[in-house]
Amino acid sequence: MRIKQIVLASRPKGLPALTDFRTEEVTLPDLKEGEVLLKPLYYSVDPYMRGRMNEGKSYIPPFEVNAPIESGAIATIAESKDKNLQPGDVVIAASSRPLLPWATGIIRKGSDVRKTDSEIPPTYYLGLLGMPGLTAYFGLMDIGKPKTGETVVVSGAAGAVGIVVGQIAKLQGCRVVGIAGGAEKVKMLTDKFNFDVAIDYKGNPDISKAIAAACPNGVDIYFDNVGGEISDAVVNQINFHGRIPLCGQIALYNSTETPVGPRWQPTLLTRSVLLQGFVIGNYASRFQEGIGQLAGWVKAGKLKYTETIEEGFDHLPDALLGLFSGRNNGKMIVKV
Amino acid sequence: MRIKQIVLASRPKGLPALTDFRTEEVTLPDLKEGEVLLKPLYYSVDPYMRGRMNEGKSYIPPFEVNAPIESGAIATIAESKDKNLQPGDVVIAASSRPLLPWATGIIRKGSDVRKTDSEIPPTYYLGLLGMPGLTAYFGLMDIGKPKTGETVVVSGAAGAVGIVVGQIAKLQGCRVVGIAGGAEKVKMLTDKFNFDVAIDYKGNPDISKAIAAACPNGVDIYFDNVGGEISDAVVNQINFHGRIPLCGQIALYNSTETPVGPRWQPTLLTRSVLLQGFVIGNYASRFQEGIGQLAGWVKAGKLKYTETIEEGFDHLPDALLGLFSGRNNGKMIVKV
Repeated sequence: MRIKQIVLASRPKGLPALTDFRTEEVTLPDLKEGEVLLKPLYYSVDPYMRGRMNEGKSYIPPFEVNAPIESGAIATIAESKDKNLQPGDVVIAASSRPLLPWATGIIRKGSDVRKTDSEIPPTYYLGLLGMPGLTAYFGLMDIGKPKTGETVVVSGAAGAVGIVVGQIAKLQGCRVVGIAGGAEKVKMLTDKFNFDVAIDYKGNPDISKAIAAACPNGVDIYFDNVGGEISDAVVNQINFHGRIPLCGQIALYNSTETPVGPRWQPTLLTRSVLLQGFVIGNYASRFQEGIGQLAGWVKAGKLKYTETIEEGFDHLPDALLGLFSGRNNGKMIVKV
Repeated sequence: MRIKQIVLASRPKGLPALTDFRTEEVTLPDLKEGEVLLKPLYYSVDPYMRGRMNEGKSYIPPFEVNAPIESGAIATIAESKDKNLQPGDVVIAASSRPLLPWATGIIRKGSDVRKTDSEIPPTYYLGLLGMPGLTAYFGLMDIGKPKTGETVVVSGAAGAVGIVVGQIAKLQGCRVVGIAGGAEKVKMLTDKFNFDVAIDYKGNPDISKAIAAACPNGVDIYFDNVGGEISDAVVNQINFHGRIPLCGQIALYNSTETPVGPRWQPTLLTRSVLLQGFVIGNYASRFQEGIGQLAGWVKAGKLKYTETIEEGFDHLPDALLGLFSGRNNGKMIVKV
């Protein structure tokens, strides 16, 4: 069977371009016993994928040039030689090998996928109950350790992780301040997601002043999704014994040189601040705990979610690039 | 009684000068019931004192202009109106108010001092069993959490804290690499204090290369006493799940502007590194545990110490300034 796949054509310098991707046709072999043919329905695109486009040691290996890009995905079974799976079943890749290549048809062992729960919208497996939701849950609860009455600031607040962080922090009794880019996003944060204050960094001439005004008691937890100057401004307001779960650095992912900025170390030292870099893989042994807690909040109506769903298999690279201009509200998903 | 005291004459910009201090004479009142007159014997001078010469919020209040400088000290009782203390007793200020002003005579309540143990050299109370030793112990053990076989790098290794960090790390079965300035200091670290490797940053044209060579398995714990470019070089070698107890930033204390440098955040994020700023006051409730452990190692011959003892009350400001040119080996103490 002939399928289309999207490969990395070249390693980008700085911001990736559509020319860094290439679509090609390949032929899949016949299914062997125990295998299934997957037709993807939805792909997740995530900021961390930018890092995999570079060479070099990181927490997951880089994408190979001329090999398919891969990301989280929901698929349906098109053909099955596994007796536990029927055509039409909706599945997600098992957590032992959680990503699917960007391809219009994929062969996997039946044991490498698991069926989704039909009572949960399938795209939630890519967001709220997937990597972004778990990242929010463990980063905030395990590193941030929020206490009632504390002030939590979230950057990238309208993103797939940020909206979950803010809502969980509210559930813990915290004052929650979100930072996002654009009037529509900040309105969403306060109106739909119950943030106490949302700051539009694009529309605000003095972000430091806005943060100080929004945090009259300082910042106890700064959940950092963005890095760069926004984070510098928040860290200036950090309290003694503050905690900084360091989750993303989207402002820096496209840097071609070592980014330079004000040193945080004197502030972190004199205020006894904890900063912990983390990736969600560190918590793999606790995923079921996280999913259970998140699903419980969803069913109790305490946790909402929002997605930006763009369409088309050929549109995947452009959707990924859209993350870096902040085109998404909440989780960015591509329906293929 | 007339005494001399040394006050802060002006807040330094950048490196302090002797003209930022002033000696003056004042008259002490007569002793009241329960009070003692202290004659200082030894003063501690410590890098953190530079921070107190600035205005602004920090973990301890700044020195006041025209008020005496204060630091850790050992004193003898010159006169006593406290029945528990006799002239000639050697004392240290109680931990509730642990510093003494730079003065040739000081009045305190008897209940605000405690006698030292005559079996322990009195200056050890300012170093190994004092703030520097406790800083080393809690920073390494509580934040660094060393495991057998790990690699520990210490900057400012020949300083009052560094020599203790390195020795405790060796007691935990770690490979220990010290960074210090000068051939004499690095020789002391390997010959006297049993460091596996000591790097002379002053005599080394490529500090990054030297660190990489000394740490073939990368760096698991970086105990940072100095900040600046030395620390940048170490952090480049930090391992996944590395820990950085952030203890001092002597390279930055005399900065007049916000120091700028390469951002550590991408490294800390992708390698899941913990960075924890701390000051020893955070561990006040556990000081007895730390002192007990350190004293036990000293008595067992497992922990050595070295001091640079300079002389003269009037020499105190110059001794403090000497820390910033690295004039000390180990703890800097002034005998007055």
